[in-house]
Amino acid sequence: MNRHDLAKPYVLFIGDVEHPAYAKTAFGLRDWVPEACVGQLRLSDRAVDIGLPDMTLAQAVEAGAKTLVIAIAPMGGQLDPDWLETITAALDVGLDVAAGLHERLAEIPEIAEASRRSGSRVHDVRQTDMALKVGTGARRTGRRLLTVGTDCALGKKYTALAIAAEMRRRGIDADFRATGQTGILIAGQGLAIDHVVADFISGAAEALSPAGAPDHWDVIEGQGSLFHPAYAGVTLGLVHGSQPDAMVLCHDPGRESLLGLPHMPLPALHDAILAYEAAGRLTNREARVVGIALNTSSLAAADARSLIEALSLTYGMPCCDPVRFGIGRLVDAIERTGRQ
Amino acid sequence: MNRHDLAKPYVLFIGDVEHPAYAKTAFGLRDWVPEACVGQLRLSDRAVDIGLPDMTLAQAVEAGAKTLVIAIAPMGGQLDPDWLETITAALDVGLDVAAGLHERLAEIPEIAEASRRSGSRVHDVRQTDMALKVGTGARRTGRRLLTVGTDCALGKKYTALAIAAEMRRRGIDADFRATGQTGILIAGQGLAIDHVVADFISGAAEALSPAGAPDHWDVIEGQGSLFHPAYAGVTLGLVHGSQPDAMVLCHDPGRESLLGLPHMPLPALHDAILAYEAAGRLTNREARVVGIALNTSSLAAADARSLIEALSLTYGMPCCDPVRFGIGRLVDAIERTGRQ
Repeated sequence: MNRHDLAKPYVLFIGDVEHPAYAKTAFGLRDWVPEACVGQLRLSDRAVDIGLPDMTLAQAVEAGAKTLVIAIAPMGGQLDPDWLETITAALDVGLDVAAGLHERLAEIPEIAEASRRSGSRVHDVRQTDMALKVGTGARRTGRRLLTVGTDCALGKKYTALAIAAEMRRRGIDADFRATGQTGILIAGQGLAIDHVVADFISGAAEALSPAGAPDHWDVIEGQGSLFHPAYAGVTLGLVHGSQPDAMVLCHDPGRESLLGLPHMPLPALHDAILAYEAAGRLTNREARVVGIALNTSSLAAADARSLIEALSLTYGMPCCDPVRFGIGRLVDAIERTGRQ
Repeated sequence: MNRHDLAKPYVLFIGDVEHPAYAKTAFGLRDWVPEACVGQLRLSDRAVDIGLPDMTLAQAVEAGAKTLVIAIAPMGGQLDPDWLETITAALDVGLDVAAGLHERLAEIPEIAEASRRSGSRVHDVRQTDMALKVGTGARRTGRRLLTVGTDCALGKKYTALAIAAEMRRRGIDADFRATGQTGILIAGQGLAIDHVVADFISGAAEALSPAGAPDHWDVIEGQGSLFHPAYAGVTLGLVHGSQPDAMVLCHDPGRESLLGLPHMPLPALHDAILAYEAAGRLTNREARVVGIALNTSSLAAADARSLIEALSLTYGMPCCDPVRFGIGRLVDAIERTGRQ
């Protein structure tokens, strides 16, 4: 697995992104490594405000920042040319720059030149130097949980981080396994599963959660959705390679269509549970969805509690909103899975 | 789409590969562009014999060969170090070398050096220089057929080539769309879908079969299988991006386990039809499996005919063995799909 020696603290570059779903890297860093985030740098007043102090590059340096993190993830992972000026200026004032785009910052001539003249470093966290192989589907020891979703960007990383943290709090031997750029920036290691050569998706997922002790849990960050026409291939390979014992289905009841695709509705929860269990059984006959994690931010608290109760009854499994009401009941269910 | 300006005729390098399934590039070239294949070069008597004259490099040059094609596809697409000597010797005697491995021949120092000193060219047909995007799932004009399978290497390319040829023979406006190295070597263009960055699988499939005239058929070469733990992600992205109106399910009734994975059984045909139709409907509500193409080479002719008859009755759709009994009934059914 790649280890990225990133200098903290970070200043988070938001650019001019206005939809919070595309700023999930920024929110993830703010929530999971707050001690490492000194401020945000926005190019427009309309850009997403993640609640950290607004800073210029000079102010960030003064506040102790060591690395400018490109904390936004536009669809497709391409660099917006409007960001170039800020990135080269950051390198010139002595900040390192870290990004998780498909495009390699280090290969963009202006950025490479600014890095050379300043001595500041450029980190492309989506790149891996692992030698990948195709998947085999062979069973590995240890236990695995994978977060899955009805869509992209609705809480799979957050849920996995919360589950891993709660497991460790209870003394369970557990590791968070990052599969995307934000997770890698938070955990300091991992593998960007959507960036590997397509033939190696499931093989990369197998390498990411190697054989472990019988009671050890790998809590694997999910990616994409089996129901998203752009990313379902990545999701399916990740399910097969992870061979999860337990899956937690993440859903946002306030979302009416797939992210970035207003013509495509979200799948029904019921169809999603069946599809993920069918996919999971190819490499693990015991693969089951053991709980539902909702992002209820669009609902009033009473409505959120009613929905959670209704879904728990319907499916006979715990349902929760990890951000709003905690993840305890869900980890109870995972512990029971571990003992079967 | 990439266009590879390959010098023909070819001499086909078989190396020491003993399982015919791994020599599918050689069989494909022999069957579909026989006029372009002067002979085979094998490193061992036990290697697969595809029925062309055995030749040394010197004999191949004498027979007029212009390009040595690495005509084998080991699992994972890596170069066997034992082949290096033949490849550099081929370049030195004035043959170009073409390969469809994941590894770039042009980046292997000994090969790059031999190419420099000889002036012979190296073609990595799995590489693309297209700027790829993520898929959108938006409907495109024109009609599309995709071959799908219960496993890898059981006739998806052959079936697609046979369907496209028969359609053109009937005056239907149809193009074969190559998605793998052999198809690209046969067609002279295409896109190796298993080699793109994972995030772009369905987007690459969308680019491979762009919007066309309402009566135009793209006949798209399938890859992998939804039931193969190594390659299912590629397959699912190809299904979503191809948004096929019609799918033809390819199956080998003589195969007992997945290619390279003796611990994993093949799926039932019934489960495969349901799974491909469910996957296809995400981007095309009319997506249907319209026929079954069997590879009955392991069966006596009478048994093959009985099985074909039984499956046609069971599923109410044409079943055929394109190699043994032709593809006419299947194309009849596709024509009916086009008229609905």
